[in-house]
Amino acid sequence: LKLGNFETCFSEAQLIPTLNLCFLGFGNVNRTLVQLLENRAAELRERYSIEYRVTGIASRRLGWIADPNGLDLKGRDFSRAAQDSWQDAALAADVKGWLSAARADVLFEATSLNVENGQPAVDHIRAALEHGAHVITANKGPIVHAYRELRDLAAHKGKHFLFESTVMDGVPIFSLFDQLPTIHLQGFHGILNSTTNVILSEMENGLTFEDALKKAREIGVAETDATHDIDGWDAAVKTAALITVLMDVPIRLDQIAREGIRDLTPQAVRTAKRDGWPFKLVCRAKRTATGVKASVGPEKVLSTQPMAKVTGTSSYIYFETDIFPGLAITEENPGLYATAYGMLADFVRATKSDMT
Amino acid sequence: LKLGNFETCFSEAQLIPTLNLCFLGFGNVNRTLVQLLENRAAELRERYSIEYRVTGIASRRLGWIADPNGLDLKGRDFSRAAQDSWQDAALAADVKGWLSAARADVLFEATSLNVENGQPAVDHIRAALEHGAHVITANKGPIVHAYRELRDLAAHKGKHFLFESTVMDGVPIFSLFDQLPTIHLQGFHGILNSTTNVILSEMENGLTFEDALKKAREIGVAETDATHDIDGWDAAVKTAALITVLMDVPIRLDQIAREGIRDLTPQAVRTAKRDGWPFKLVCRAKRTATGVKASVGPEKVLSTQPMAKVTGTSSYIYFETDIFPGLAITEENPGLYATAYGMLADFVRATKSDMT
Repeated sequence: LKLGNFETCFSEAQLIPTLNLCFLGFGNVNRTLVQLLENRAAELRERYSIEYRVTGIASRRLGWIADPNGLDLKGRDFSRAAQDSWQDAALAADVKGWLSAARADVLFEATSLNVENGQPAVDHIRAALEHGAHVITANKGPIVHAYRELRDLAAHKGKHFLFESTVMDGVPIFSLFDQLPTIHLQGFHGILNSTTNVILSEMENGLTFEDALKKAREIGVAETDATHDIDGWDAAVKTAALITVLMDVPIRLDQIAREGIRDLTPQAVRTAKRDGWPFKLVCRAKRTATGVKASVGPEKVLSTQPMAKVTGTSSYIYFETDIFPGLAITEENPGLYATAYGMLADFVRATKSDMT
Repeated sequence: LKLGNFETCFSEAQLIPTLNLCFLGFGNVNRTLVQLLENRAAELRERYSIEYRVTGIASRRLGWIADPNGLDLKGRDFSRAAQDSWQDAALAADVKGWLSAARADVLFEATSLNVENGQPAVDHIRAALEHGAHVITANKGPIVHAYRELRDLAAHKGKHFLFESTVMDGVPIFSLFDQLPTIHLQGFHGILNSTTNVILSEMENGLTFEDALKKAREIGVAETDATHDIDGWDAAVKTAALITVLMDVPIRLDQIAREGIRDLTPQAVRTAKRDGWPFKLVCRAKRTATGVKASVGPEKVLSTQPMAKVTGTSSYIYFETDIFPGLAITEENPGLYATAYGMLADFVRATKSDMT
């Protein structure tokens, strides 16, 4: 390392502000994101001039932990028993105090889905935008229950409200449509819930419903409470999010005809597969004269159709637009980092457009 | 229309500069683009604050037509015989004089592919960037033969050099990867040439090679001289463009193992299809320790594989990345506007990032 290089690095480093990142909900997604950010730190700095530090972590278990000088996360124990290991950091009283204490520039919101009203995530996101931070969420609830309000608030504050990880694990679906100016989306269909797709695939292979669900839990796609998946809620919320954002039609969940896979017997699933018409939990939306007609439910799909090939944890979506009559995206065997990556990509999008 | 509204429109109109657009090569793609721009003019103005006029049109047949006040294209006859109908507009002597006379802000370059060296398109694009215009091309030659030079020149001039329409008719492939920060592309495979795909599909249906080629011409996918398609040149140039831009590895065409479909007999094509392993002209690229290994050639594809389902004018690409092990995009039955649309989308990208 020559002195000249060192000086260049030093002076460049002074020009790049260090962004304060806060993580709300500290389960798999946000923990993986912290790892991924660390893994990509050099690339973020060199290619996108992004420097960051983690100044806030919050969860029901940990409380509102904040330190504006940066929390040292290396080797930390995040279990409840280890809460006192955070004594060095301040514990705020609520979300506002936390964002303020952490001097948050970006909030990564990854708490769990509340199907009924999207709370408390909606309130947390609103607080972060009011505080003046970008908000990046992996939580579908706020999109379905408060998209327009939060989008408009973000625009008003000159901040970004991004949510690429809410559908298809961070595959750039919403960003794709940002790249399609003046295009008109007429409808879509696809397979968007991994848990039910794994269960159907495993039932085809001979497992009972219960054993197939156990398998889905073992490979990490199903939560302990898989009701939201099995009864089609997760797929319906994703369908509603796509309709709300990409078709610009607000839709309530009770306007989506919804049926899960609970009533499918292993016998029916295996017979359908053998006959060349395997069952899939299919999401559908179609623009009509008055709005959008949408549904989520099990369908027999002809085995030569692309949807029939989507097995296990893979997912698929087919868009009908005025320019591209059929534009389909398939995600095969998503890796561990896929959902967290969607949030990292949103982070770069938010900060890049700050700088131009 | 109330006076208040009128005043608002008027003052807004004054704030939006009118962009001067120039079209080089005036065949199907650029003519369709002119129509599409007209069709979307209101949306471009309202949603993206883009106003434009056409100030230059050039082709071997028409010469270098320019008028900085805007050419009136309505009801124009673009045939050679009608050249004198352009008497009202100035005819420039060469590309530089033309860009200058037309006061070009954006060049849409859509001349035909020169496989050997990408000329004269490379010189034309260089001239336009030097002049200070954004350049949007549907021509693959300059990407393969001069990508880095033109990219760097554009950056130096603070202009955009965009080329979404060179691969998959304007489906956002290059833009997609712009949305995937710090991702590492390890390889890809796909079906990227429509003419050969139509010919293979039609041979499977019983046509001879010649009749299948005739059909491809009738539906408008094959040029009069289809040699570039049939011998795999078009697919190889697309493969090289993707490797050069997305894998950041410059590759010469002679480094891509290339075989066309000329030697496939109808008998072989039909037998393969009947046996469940239809022939496809497959493009492949894979990162190696020292660079990228790439090929274009006919392959028998197992009929249950996604590529086997890609028939007729449809196309397909499967990307292997570190985050998404398999991310595939399928374009089914592209519409008439698909290629021109890619240029319109590039136009919005170039001008939007001007304004932020």
